[in-house]
Amino acid sequence: MGNGSPPVVVELGNRSYCVHIGDGLLAQTGQIARENALSGRAAIVSDSRVAPLYLSAVQDSLAQAGYVFSAHVVPSGEQSKSLEMVKTLCEQFAHDGVDRHSFVVALGGGVIGDLAGFVAAIYYRGIPVIQLPTTLMAQVDSSVGGKTGVNLNAGKNLVGAFHQPHAVIADTLTLTSLSRRDFNEGVAEVIKYGAISDPKLLGELSQGITSIAQLVRQCVRIKAGFVTEDERETSGRRALLNFGHTIGHAIEAAAGYGTLLHGEAIALGMLAAAEISSKRVGFPAEEAARLRTMIQQYELPTRLPSGLDPQVVLRRVFVDKKFQDGNISFVVCSRLGNAFSTKEVTREDLAAAIVGLQTGKT
Amino acid sequence: MGNGSPPVVVELGNRSYCVHIGDGLLAQTGQIARENALSGRAAIVSDSRVAPLYLSAVQDSLAQAGYVFSAHVVPSGEQSKSLEMVKTLCEQFAHDGVDRHSFVVALGGGVIGDLAGFVAAIYYRGIPVIQLPTTLMAQVDSSVGGKTGVNLNAGKNLVGAFHQPHAVIADTLTLTSLSRRDFNEGVAEVIKYGAISDPKLLGELSQGITSIAQLVRQCVRIKAGFVTEDERETSGRRALLNFGHTIGHAIEAAAGYGTLLHGEAIALGMLAAAEISSKRVGFPAEEAARLRTMIQQYELPTRLPSGLDPQVVLRRVFVDKKFQDGNISFVVCSRLGNAFSTKEVTREDLAAAIVGLQTGKT
Repeated sequence: MGNGSPPVVVELGNRSYCVHIGDGLLAQTGQIARENALSGRAAIVSDSRVAPLYLSAVQDSLAQAGYVFSAHVVPSGEQSKSLEMVKTLCEQFAHDGVDRHSFVVALGGGVIGDLAGFVAAIYYRGIPVIQLPTTLMAQVDSSVGGKTGVNLNAGKNLVGAFHQPHAVIADTLTLTSLSRRDFNEGVAEVIKYGAISDPKLLGELSQGITSIAQLVRQCVRIKAGFVTEDERETSGRRALLNFGHTIGHAIEAAAGYGTLLHGEAIALGMLAAAEISSKRVGFPAEEAARLRTMIQQYELPTRLPSGLDPQVVLRRVFVDKKFQDGNISFVVCSRLGNAFSTKEVTREDLAAAIVGLQTGKT
Repeated sequence: MGNGSPPVVVELGNRSYCVHIGDGLLAQTGQIARENALSGRAAIVSDSRVAPLYLSAVQDSLAQAGYVFSAHVVPSGEQSKSLEMVKTLCEQFAHDGVDRHSFVVALGGGVIGDLAGFVAAIYYRGIPVIQLPTTLMAQVDSSVGGKTGVNLNAGKNLVGAFHQPHAVIADTLTLTSLSRRDFNEGVAEVIKYGAISDPKLLGELSQGITSIAQLVRQCVRIKAGFVTEDERETSGRRALLNFGHTIGHAIEAAAGYGTLLHGEAIALGMLAAAEISSKRVGFPAEEAARLRTMIQQYELPTRLPSGLDPQVVLRRVFVDKKFQDGNISFVVCSRLGNAFSTKEVTREDLAAAIVGLQTGKT
């Protein structure tokens, strides 16, 4: 396991790429770039939290492989995911000689992956990017699949592009520097994979994580499968990855960004989705209980933050989703591992599940 | 003629689309949107010069076809092609309820096509766009082929995306409102098509333009062929459309944007490319003379603006192009209608041709 294991391949025809997973892989960045026939200069994008920890390792690796590079460090946090920062980075790129033959190296968590990936998507109408995710959330989810983007004042991720990376390098050693809370928010997405696709993952999580590289690998395999089947989320297959996200996103926004971590909001969203699944498609009570136990075990929330009005959350669901012809597409599970979309979910179902999150009943 | 003729089809598999060419076609915008199965709301983007002339016709047509729409008018001119304006438009879109099911209608010249096309490429990771070009330059060139983008301080079109339109509607009546200078800059691109692909076009131009719709149609057919063969300019085929552009862009930038119109700079670039073609690949003197006659007939410049130092232009060529291994790829013609790229062009060739533009020798 780890460094010796073969990479997971995301099969997308001539856009296929490898996800390398293991301890210490940041030191292979330059070599992996060479294997991907990237020959121009590298523009490393990172943030003020990650750069002091890992930038030098990446720079050393690129230098060893003979690359010329520049480093572009943005402030850590969601506020860097803006069109203003896109402009700042693009102007820096141009100033530093980054051109159509260059490539981007995105070193950081989800914010950096989304931001640097988007800049790579539009600079000179698109140059390659290598994703170096340094959070569990980014390693198991956001670095794989090509979704990139930034926020508007009007909402998160409203501007973006599909831009598949040339490679993903998930150095699992970087996860050791995460706070417990930051690590656990990533576990929320692992639980999601368990719920929609592979209940065995939940069994493994319940034992405590023994091999993080193996866990990341299992999640990436699942994600890669969905992306291969539905790269641009047009057939509805990839949309199953949104289990827990409709209500989760609404909670995250209604609570005010920064109150709950994304994964924490998703944990609440999954509990609500489980409640709705029980009511609508016979999701068994014992499986819902299993999901809840996992969420509790990883110290993720099971109740709305105090003071957050469920009606505000409910209204936010409709801002995001817009009931088309009175229905939204909502992801439910009939059993753990069997997720699908339905339009049978009513406003009342949503309201009851969200109110339940306040009382702790959901 | 015009309205009755079938559209030109740009063949790109599932991204294929029609270019409708003829007098009065703006009034068919709504109908053509319906034919393209666009069902959501429309976001019309136009500028302060074009909107007073044509916005109401487009709005009426969309309303007649049952569309809900919003209109977004930006200041006329190149300075609107910025990431700041992209942000402004995206925030307006979100405020006005434009969502993933909506589409953009780009009503204007090259600036609007590039800007609105780029916004369409990135809003919700891409929504459809219909291009309604209102200049000759945009009708024969920029509205077809999917290149979109905006400028940085560091240079023009450094940020962008390939985003093919769902349809192009070239209403040739709109060309009657162009100033003679604005019309003639579009003729520069027509001359280019003649030079690289279809010398008969030059013969027709020399007689004076009798049917503008037919002329646009011939140019769009040529452009469509290049785009079909090489959508993303990777094989080098589409790059032949850059005949005259390497030196033309450098002249445009060195003179200061706004001094020369794009097409005027391209006319100069073509004269320089013809000179280099004569020296390097035996482009016949009588064909070079024919090109020059055409450029003069349409009142396009044949000499550098007074006070513009050829050395400044030359340096600018290298900023844009970067001699890789001492060579740039340069488009030449061995005969009218037969263009190809070569790396045989030297710095001295470029310098001599540009100096020649000052003295009027080139």
